[in-house]
Amino acid sequence: MGKLKSSYLALLFCSVVFGQEQPVDYVNPFIGTSNYGATHPGAIAPRGMASVSPFNVAGKIKLNPLEKDSQWLSNPYVHENSYLTGFSHVNLSGVGCPDLGVIISMPTTGKLKTNHLEYGSTYSEEVAKAGYYSVTLDGYNIKTEATASTRVGVSRYTFPAGESNILLNLGLGLTNEQGGMLKINSASEVEGLRMVGSFCYNSPEAAYPVYFVAKLSKPADNFGIWNTPYKNTGKEAQWMGYNARTRIKESFTREVVGDSIGAYFSYNFKEPTKVEVKIGISYVSIENARENLEKEVGKKSFDEVYKDTKEAWNKKLSRIEVEGGTEDKKSIFYTALYHTQIHPNILNDINGEYPEVATGKIGTTNGTRYTVFSLWDTYRNYHQLMSLVYPEEQLQMVNSMLDMYDENGWLPKWELNSTETFTMVGDPASVVIADTYLRGLTGFDVEKAYKAMLKSATQTENNPLRPGLGEYIKNGYLSVDSRIAGPVSTTLEYNISDYAIAQMAKALGKKDDYLEFSKRSLSYKKLYNPETGFLQPKYRNGEWYKPFDPEAGANFTKNVGYIEGNAWQYLFMVPHDIPEMIKLTGDTKNFVKRLDYIFDKSHYDMANEPDIAYPFLYNYSRGDEWKTQKRVDDLLRTYYKNGPYGLPGNDDTGTMSAWAVFAMMGIYPITPAAPVYALSAPKFSKISIHLNNNYYKQETLVFTSNASEGNIYIDSIEIDGKGNKSYFIDHDKLLKDGHIEFKLKATENFR
Amino acid sequence: MGKLKSSYLALLFCSVVFGQEQPVDYVNPFIGTSNYGATHPGAIAPRGMASVSPFNVAGKIKLNPLEKDSQWLSNPYVHENSYLTGFSHVNLSGVGCPDLGVIISMPTTGKLKTNHLEYGSTYSEEVAKAGYYSVTLDGYNIKTEATASTRVGVSRYTFPAGESNILLNLGLGLTNEQGGMLKINSASEVEGLRMVGSFCYNSPEAAYPVYFVAKLSKPADNFGIWNTPYKNTGKEAQWMGYNARTRIKESFTREVVGDSIGAYFSYNFKEPTKVEVKIGISYVSIENARENLEKEVGKKSFDEVYKDTKEAWNKKLSRIEVEGGTEDKKSIFYTALYHTQIHPNILNDINGEYPEVATGKIGTTNGTRYTVFSLWDTYRNYHQLMSLVYPEEQLQMVNSMLDMYDENGWLPKWELNSTETFTMVGDPASVVIADTYLRGLTGFDVEKAYKAMLKSATQTENNPLRPGLGEYIKNGYLSVDSRIAGPVSTTLEYNISDYAIAQMAKALGKKDDYLEFSKRSLSYKKLYNPETGFLQPKYRNGEWYKPFDPEAGANFTKNVGYIEGNAWQYLFMVPHDIPEMIKLTGDTKNFVKRLDYIFDKSHYDMANEPDIAYPFLYNYSRGDEWKTQKRVDDLLRTYYKNGPYGLPGNDDTGTMSAWAVFAMMGIYPITPAAPVYALSAPKFSKISIHLNNNYYKQETLVFTSNASEGNIYIDSIEIDGKGNKSYFIDHDKLLKDGHIEFKLKATENFR
Repeated sequence: MGKLKSSYLALLFCSVVFGQEQPVDYVNPFIGTSNYGATHPGAIAPRGMASVSPFNVAGKIKLNPLEKDSQWLSNPYVHENSYLTGFSHVNLSGVGCPDLGVIISMPTTGKLKTNHLEYGSTYSEEVAKAGYYSVTLDGYNIKTEATASTRVGVSRYTFPAGESNILLNLGLGLTNEQGGMLKINSASEVEGLRMVGSFCYNSPEAAYPVYFVAKLSKPADNFGIWNTPYKNTGKEAQWMGYNARTRIKESFTREVVGDSIGAYFSYNFKEPTKVEVKIGISYVSIENARENLEKEVGKKSFDEVYKDTKEAWNKKLSRIEVEGGTEDKKSIFYTALYHTQIHPNILNDINGEYPEVATGKIGTTNGTRYTVFSLWDTYRNYHQLMSLVYPEEQLQMVNSMLDMYDENGWLPKWELNSTETFTMVGDPASVVIADTYLRGLTGFDVEKAYKAMLKSATQTENNPLRPGLGEYIKNGYLSVDSRIAGPVSTTLEYNISDYAIAQMAKALGKKDDYLEFSKRSLSYKKLYNPETGFLQPKYRNGEWYKPFDPEAGANFTKNVGYIEGNAWQYLFMVPHDIPEMIKLTGDTKNFVKRLDYIFDKSHYDMANEPDIAYPFLYNYSRGDEWKTQKRVDDLLRTYYKNGPYGLPGNDDTGTMSAWAVFAMMGIYPITPAAPVYALSAPKFSKISIHLNNNYYKQETLVFTSNASEGNIYIDSIEIDGKGNKSYFIDHDKLLKDGHIEFKLKATENFR
Repeated sequence: MGKLKSSYLALLFCSVVFGQEQPVDYVNPFIGTSNYGATHPGAIAPRGMASVSPFNVAGKIKLNPLEKDSQWLSNPYVHENSYLTGFSHVNLSGVGCPDLGVIISMPTTGKLKTNHLEYGSTYSEEVAKAGYYSVTLDGYNIKTEATASTRVGVSRYTFPAGESNILLNLGLGLTNEQGGMLKINSASEVEGLRMVGSFCYNSPEAAYPVYFVAKLSKPADNFGIWNTPYKNTGKEAQWMGYNARTRIKESFTREVVGDSIGAYFSYNFKEPTKVEVKIGISYVSIENARENLEKEVGKKSFDEVYKDTKEAWNKKLSRIEVEGGTEDKKSIFYTALYHTQIHPNILNDINGEYPEVATGKIGTTNGTRYTVFSLWDTYRNYHQLMSLVYPEEQLQMVNSMLDMYDENGWLPKWELNSTETFTMVGDPASVVIADTYLRGLTGFDVEKAYKAMLKSATQTENNPLRPGLGEYIKNGYLSVDSRIAGPVSTTLEYNISDYAIAQMAKALGKKDDYLEFSKRSLSYKKLYNPETGFLQPKYRNGEWYKPFDPEAGANFTKNVGYIEGNAWQYLFMVPHDIPEMIKLTGDTKNFVKRLDYIFDKSHYDMANEPDIAYPFLYNYSRGDEWKTQKRVDDLLRTYYKNGPYGLPGNDDTGTMSAWAVFAMMGIYPITPAAPVYALSAPKFSKISIHLNNNYYKQETLVFTSNASEGNIYIDSIEIDGKGNKSYFIDHDKLLKDGHIEFKLKATENFR
């Protein structure tokens, strides 16, 4: 890594010398905080376990139209709301279900209030940067600032003179899990835990604690806890004058447990005073939370922690340098790249310990244990981006997935803090592993990985990853009779995974497997109804499910054949077999016509994954590549903006952002588990990807162009100075040649 | 103490040699488990912090007519019930409000069940001895045995072959507090805590945790936890298929918190197998619970622990040896003495640590920190018995009370595990301290004690012990207008405390105080209505409250003037001024007539404290002493029996039992804070009180008599061989002379 480091230093030096904005300066964490993007503007370090997010989704429906308990809401903060009730210290970004959003701190002034419906406040002067968030609480005139190291959230509250309080509310949270414990150790320290889990209303039996130790820079004048018990409804309630009433226990220093508990630290300041609050997090134990806090932050000031985290972000983001393009485009680009560096995040403590999947044990890693694998989303483009730009992370992610296999007996599907949430369908881990391997990143136990992939592809009984596998193997598709969710979608997902296994088998010289899984990967054809031209749900006996409506399933409505989509959105979700699919549906003309129809009639859903690669599919029709360039440009302009509404929908732990990063660079990994990119028009005049030379020989990939607001069409492409006719490029070739020159123009190339 | 020890050893030796029953063998822990005696038959060491009581007060109303949630019920076990749901490891004995009764273990067989309504069982073959309890669970054919050291409950379960489970249920409990935490450390260890408190529905803000570590002698084949969350009633409930359902987490080894949680350890035995479960308790921390477990029990077997505890009990109970009398009488006597050795109990851990009152801090004692001071009850006779028989304990209790004063700024009133529950009325701590001092036990900081007593007697603002003190000092009584509970009762209680302070002042040479408090102690006269002959509630302006009904207030019914009693029961509750009271109400003839009326018309309440000394008041009327002998004999025969119904009512942490011990010995401490006993007829032919020679010179006090079922009247009394006319004896004289010979007969002495 020495080489890399020096190049970064050089970069940094240049930026400083010339007073240029650095990549980190372009990050706008407000992007995605509206339009259900589900990102949060809080402070976080790259792939941090801890984060400090403003929490504005609880209570006061008029001020908070998106209230967490009145609807399905999956984020601690939304742009639409305006009543803030604190700062949560573990948060998910860009997910579709509520979880975490707990360990909530809140500074107030005046008399102690412990009910967030009473102590919340509107706010103003919000500032969000990579690793920094700040806001002024209108009700208290308190400036609050937040930053974070990997496992520690650090806040700085600037209090006015007078009575002030710092609250730590363990009752409030985004998660639907209940229960916390806390123990005040001194006038400046409290420790505890909060139960979280049951993500997407699944796996409640796997709910688990997140631990913390909070330290204040100033000992409080008074401290204590509160506890609001549940209402006793029995006979004895008549004698309980205190029934369900909040209790304040001043100076209480033993453990307190309950669903609605908190700690307070109160001051009486003679003059405006700053107090820093450092909260160390762990998923293993309070001791580890303390060690994380002490080793990662210790006596460092807020400013020092922020400086380090900002530098870490800049280092990460500087792997890709862009020049030209508007300031907004740069913000969109670097914020997208930033959003790909939130999840998967680090799960292990600084001592290497982490909770294992399923075993109930504490494991230890020498490297990094990653968590939050939303693989149904991320197998499509996210891991391809990581393989290219952050290969060391991608390999470590694969190794984390293999550790999970060791622990659980199965690869992950939708893993969250070492619980398998079984969210969504398919067997995406195999695709990620094969894709990584085929891109030349082989630094993992390949035989074990292959064995794990085969297991989920062949074990027909008690297979948590591939329900209905027996029927799928026998008949080539999941039937409506199987009652398995979205039988068409799930069949396609299995096909894609089988294709990945076939490609891996081929690379490993396992010819029989290659042939078998190649064959399996094409069974989607059994669901193709030539009469309608769609992939349709089918009964076991071969009859089509009726009635068939190709639009049923749009906008997440329930339907028989598809998961989060309809027949249009799944029609071309066979990325490994598009040429054959074109033949199946007629010819390229017909194919392009139907693609056009999908886009023109708004059947395309930029906010979800099944059709995420559609804009690039025009490249399969010679002469129609300009439509890819056009669609991609349209989509970027329509859905990706430098503001809260700047994501098309849920970021899906970075998948939507990865789409934007690729799309703006002019390359897209069109086929999971095939190391190839579709080309489109880049949005910057120069894009430099600084490669990790531990994995790739080339120092830097450079894409140059005359990109502008108008120049969105490709006139010609030169690769290493040689003319290039293809609108696809192999991963190997890209890495070898290193330089693509796009000549762009303002009008399309007609066929 | 060396001398004491050797005399005990001699005693023990004799017993063993002659194969006689020892005192410990007479204990029948079933006494008081019915008739609301509120004792439990569980295993406990003398003044133990831990105990193992069968828990049969939850669920199944048909099998358990006294169900804890359907009424006010203050004990973990009642004789009336027959459905057992486990064994609670911290328990109160003889109290009037529900608390503790938590950390409940239960052995079962077959498939795991976690709901006590499903896994409970009827039972048979109950055996209870001092330090030992055993029962067979009908539903499972499991023999369960329990014993305990001071801070550790030890159980032995004899399982049949097949599937078996040991449950530790932290959801179930007698207390109305909520919340627990547990963490399984291995297949044979679990630790955690349970919140308790709000005794008598008071002081909810002081609720606190009790900690435990449980170790099993055999590692389980499987283990895990269960957790039943509260029902989510929000919008999201519609997606929560698991809403409010019990979750089983197998092999889960991190913390679990909640109101309804538990741990299970499951086995599959090839043959009948014994498993021992040791549960260490602490009110400080889990670490201390573990240290208590390891240092007190460690690798000792069940049998070894029981042997030690049985010996400890025998040592304690052998302080008084009785000869003659029926076997039942001996059981009644030794069980009463046993019940005086349950509370106050030890609060400090083996390392000396204990939670302080009010400070939130952990204190350390070199001696013993006692807790459970039900002083409104115990000031009347209990502490007098302790001063006589266990002076070292009584002094340590006074020192614990003074430590509480140091911590809290106030002496205790009704202290429970370092929370002041403010139950009942008056300022009884002063009486206990003065009484102890005046009996010659001066080994405490007397000046501090006196200062503490004066504080509660003189601070008119914010005085938690003596509400309404200003009015009381000014007018001599608490008025109905004051709205202070039971103004007549409370005035009398303040008088008694003031008398105690006066006596203490006198002994300390504080003449002014003596005069002032002596005067204050007689202000009850202001409540005497010569027209009715009763102490009556009065308005501030001097008018009597109307209507006046001397029977109002009996059987705990609500009334304006009195606490837990009526005008009859409070009429003579001026133990320090009976001769004047006789004059006030007329003459001795009238006095005796009214006493007779009270007894004959059932206005006397043997089950409560205000009139507890009434039977001995006949001694104030020369020639009527035989009525004391008769009433005492009647009451003993009617209310004290060798069986579950063998207490007159709530044991009041040993007060009712202390009454029986004194009454059966023929002496009674007639006036709190005056070292004098009233004499009546003993119930044994020889009673030997082995005195602690660190405090008293005499080796042994001996009361001899020709007691029999018929000989219940005193013919004559000889003290140290000299004739004695008085039916009172001073504490000093008793201790000096050492031997009282009662000549008894079967017919009364007429006046």
